Amino acid sequence: MQIFTEKEIRTNVTINQTIIREIESAFTDLFTKNVRMPPIMRVDIPENNAEVDVKTAYIPGHESFALKVSSGFFNNYKLGLPSTGGLMFLISAVNGQPEALLYDNGYLTDVRTAAAGAVAADYLANENIQVVGVIGAGAQARYQLEALKEVRNFQHVVVFSKTKKRVIEFKEEIEEKLAVSVTIKDNAEQVANESQIIITTTPSEEPVLRSEWIKPGTHITAMGADAPYKQELDSKILQMADVVVCDVITQCEVCGELRPGIEAGLIDKTKVLELGQITSKKIKPRLSKDAITVADLTGTGAQDTKIALYAYQQLVNEAKI
Amino acid sequence: MQIFTEKEIRTNVTINQTIIREIESAFTDLFTKNVRMPPIMRVDIPENNAEVDVKTAYIPGHESFALKVSSGFFNNYKLGLPSTGGLMFLISAVNGQPEALLYDNGYLTDVRTAAAGAVAADYLANENIQVVGVIGAGAQARYQLEALKEVRNFQHVVVFSKTKKRVIEFKEEIEEKLAVSVTIKDNAEQVANESQIIITTTPSEEPVLRSEWIKPGTHITAMGADAPYKQELDSKILQMADVVVCDVITQCEVCGELRPGIEAGLIDKTKVLELGQITSKKIKPRLSKDAITVADLTGTGAQDTKIALYAYQQLVNEAKI
Repeated sequence: MQIFTEKEIRTNVTINQTIIREIESAFTDLFTKNVRMPPIMRVDIPENNAEVDVKTAYIPGHESFALKVSSGFFNNYKLGLPSTGGLMFLISAVNGQPEALLYDNGYLTDVRTAAAGAVAADYLANENIQVVGVIGAGAQARYQLEALKEVRNFQHVVVFSKTKKRVIEFKEEIEEKLAVSVTIKDNAEQVANESQIIITTTPSEEPVLRSEWIKPGTHITAMGADAPYKQELDSKILQMADVVVCDVITQCEVCGELRPGIEAGLIDKTKVLELGQITSKKIKPRLSKDAITVADLTGTGAQDTKIALYAYQQLVNEAKI
Repeated sequence: MQIFTEKEIRTNVTINQTIIREIESAFTDLFTKNVRMPPIMRVDIPENNAEVDVKTAYIPGHESFALKVSSGFFNNYKLGLPSTGGLMFLISAVNGQPEALLYDNGYLTDVRTAAAGAVAADYLANENIQVVGVIGAGAQARYQLEALKEVRNFQHVVVFSKTKKRVIEFKEEIEEKLAVSVTIKDNAEQVANESQIIITTTPSEEPVLRSEWIKPGTHITAMGADAPYKQELDSKILQMADVVVCDVITQCEVCGELRPGIEAGLIDKTKVLELGQITSKKIKPRLSKDAITVADLTGTGAQDTKIALYAYQQLVNEAKI
């Protein structure tokens, strides 16, 4: 078993067009192949404000698959440690041997999550985008913009975060890295007012975006909710949207935005699409420039398998050079 | 993260009384503490005659918990590789950091499974045991006898296995290691006829032990069934038994002997006990010498956490010496 460190992985895996298309293929495979993706395994340790998740998926046609352990320990800031962590195994589907341990501390999850946002926006958002809004200013907000830049050539970002210091760093980093201008807003409503695409990247347990703020033509990607108590969108947004797309409906109805939407009786699940339905047919479901579209992303084991395979290939090629 | 090899683990962890009591405490904890043990995560790859299982359990009071990946790739013999494999992580329940990777290739699973058999026999079997019968002659048959020897001083073993070569090796190994005599039988009925305790350790998908063969006073431990298509016991055995004990009822009704028993309408689930119910009260439920008792063991994440904690402690102490 080969072991790769976070540093090696960060050096060899950076967001690019290939990764976005690999993650797109994960969604297509989920819809067209007999992918073996069991429900997320979850251990909650509320006494430490913590959770550990396990995801996996075997995708026929690949000789290996990933098994990922990811953790969120939200008291870690008191210990001077990062809140989130994780690692992935690449396991041979031929003989069961663990081929590689990708000890990435969650980096590959950040990359594959951002790539999913870009895939969703690519299929759902209007083509001509100038302004992108972001709620939240953590690592995932940065990665989402970086991936989105691969599919939409926006020039301006508006951002709101409750954490003032973080949002200033965010502005500096994004302006330098993506060569766009960033404006810090006082609240989420101002962000919604100016944005053609809105990305919510918070661990919020109550809506951060209200339906009355959403302008015609907006695409929204909500990627923060990944637990049965999290919610970023007022469920009326899903009700008013022309198109609602989930990464995987069975996951989103347990831990995504679909969950509160169904509970409130505001969403007809049979009208919700899965991302693989549209990527497999290469059809963009937006019917007009004024349509409102929503992507509800909870993160799938199939994405983990694709990014682990990609990372391993890069790392092994690097070792050969 | 510290990484320990199978060789280091085998050197430092061998079946003993302490391990049996640690595994007993796993069952007690399952019954008396708020153990967080999600259902087994399973990936089936039938095209390669293979399966991968993930088990975990957080036990309050311990600062770490195990997450185990175990695999069965039953075509591996064609590749000259062992069929089963696996590894365990020990993860901090305080900060989420992976503390150790126990790369044991399934050895610790063998040990904790054998220890569970010994715990069950200790609470269920008659005290005075001369003859133990085993169906199957693989690694787990050996470990079960080794662990059982810690709780019952038997002098003779009778064994039946379909694999002739394996059973001859088994006889030689067990006679040397446990200082008991071993007789190879032609079929399972002969084993049942002579045994006071019977242990079934096969991957069978149909019963290997029939109810009409079971003598009064017998204790049976069935540990082979761990999947929804496996079965070692004729379900009439569970029906006729005075006491039926599961490691965890919710697991056994999915992948243990309880499953076919319930499906056939032969077992009243409400009369089945969990091992933790009896270990926590230190009460032996056998009411007479002639009672028939059955333990249905599928293997639990709580056992994995206990054995991983024990192994880590041994390995770290070893490193200090």
